[in-house]
Amino acid sequence: MKIKVLTEILEANNTIAAENRRVFEKNNVFVVNLMSAPGTGKTSLLERILEKLRIKFRIGILEGDITSTVDAQRLEKFGVQVVQVNTGGECHLDANMIRNALPLFNLGEIDLFIIENVGNLVCPAEFKVGEDMKIMISSVPEGDDKPKKYPLMFRESKCMIINKIDLLGTSDFSLERLRESALEINPGLKIFNISCKTGEGIPELSNWIRKLVKNQKK
Amino acid sequence: MKIKVLTEILEANNTIAAENRRVFEKNNVFVVNLMSAPGTGKTSLLERILEKLRIKFRIGILEGDITSTVDAQRLEKFGVQVVQVNTGGECHLDANMIRNALPLFNLGEIDLFIIENVGNLVCPAEFKVGEDMKIMISSVPEGDDKPKKYPLMFRESKCMIINKIDLLGTSDFSLERLRESALEINPGLKIFNISCKTGEGIPELSNWIRKLVKNQKK
Repeated sequence: MKIKVLTEILEANNTIAAENRRVFEKNNVFVVNLMSAPGTGKTSLLERILEKLRIKFRIGILEGDITSTVDAQRLEKFGVQVVQVNTGGECHLDANMIRNALPLFNLGEIDLFIIENVGNLVCPAEFKVGEDMKIMISSVPEGDDKPKKYPLMFRESKCMIINKIDLLGTSDFSLERLRESALEINPGLKIFNISCKTGEGIPELSNWIRKLVKNQKK
Repeated sequence: MKIKVLTEILEANNTIAAENRRVFEKNNVFVVNLMSAPGTGKTSLLERILEKLRIKFRIGILEGDITSTVDAQRLEKFGVQVVQVNTGGECHLDANMIRNALPLFNLGEIDLFIIENVGNLVCPAEFKVGEDMKIMISSVPEGDDKPKKYPLMFRESKCMIINKIDLLGTSDFSLERLRESALEINPGLKIFNISCKTGEGIPELSNWIRKLVKNQKK
């Protein structure tokens, strides 16, 4: 019974995600669904890459959280369109929440739309929202065993960002072990090592995103 | 519709949790539901406190994970009863999963039963499993803003363990800010600062748990 309900929910979600997709394509908007565990640095990453990307593109940010507007407040200063969506207890954003928020954006004036999902390594990976790609963040203090424990997240993502590399050496975390086990699940995974604290790796990541958005715009 | 289904699921869960509770009470077992975000150090904490607590008590561990047996393997060497429960994609343990696993334990020979939940700051807090208390772990690299974003977890827990205090000073994390915002949500919250790496705070935490289990045994 529970599985049946879940299947129905996921099918309904996919239908709405496809509708969102058509709206984004019509407006020529490139859409990123950004996911990670709590405290891995999604908002810090956005602060870093917005500095670079907003020079080239008009950007919209949808901030997903269970409650609070902490993250949206942090991003408003960048002069981009930011809307906070509270999920009301749900542990992920779904396609319908995105659809309901879209009228709050002026999509005709957005090139890159970034959805910051709820901090959670499980359910956000199950719910398509109409994105061009999913990006996930892992981080050094979380340890290198996460692909084994949360495989769907690593399988669904086009890119894994490894954040907090300034903390390499403070634990037995191994970059090599994380890379290997993530690539075992998803051989095509693009990987960036970064530190939102020091800025290391941010230019390379920003350039990669910039090229993807530019190609879409052609 | 979705809300109705969720309410029904939570009510059914509460009924089974109450049944589990009676089984634990009958066997005079003290039950801890241990929760945190992924990579915060639930299993590392267990490794540390099992060293101390297994001298005094007979211990059972139920390891919850979406998939994999990584954590159970880490704990087997302590000579305690360990059972791994895979949730099959679900982002939390529920009371029924616990009920199904109980026959695999010899409860008559267990004083302290610890349930390591799935790494997730959201749904595990919603699902009672029949525990005496919930303990949550937060950690320094996750940042100090988590109570604002995941309030239910902080409200439901009797104790918050702040792990990885060896990393204090590597970011703008403030112990005081985390304590204050957690206590604002849950004024009765018991707080321990620890490092599973250095062992700091582990004796105090172990003593506190030891006293609770001993009182129950009277």
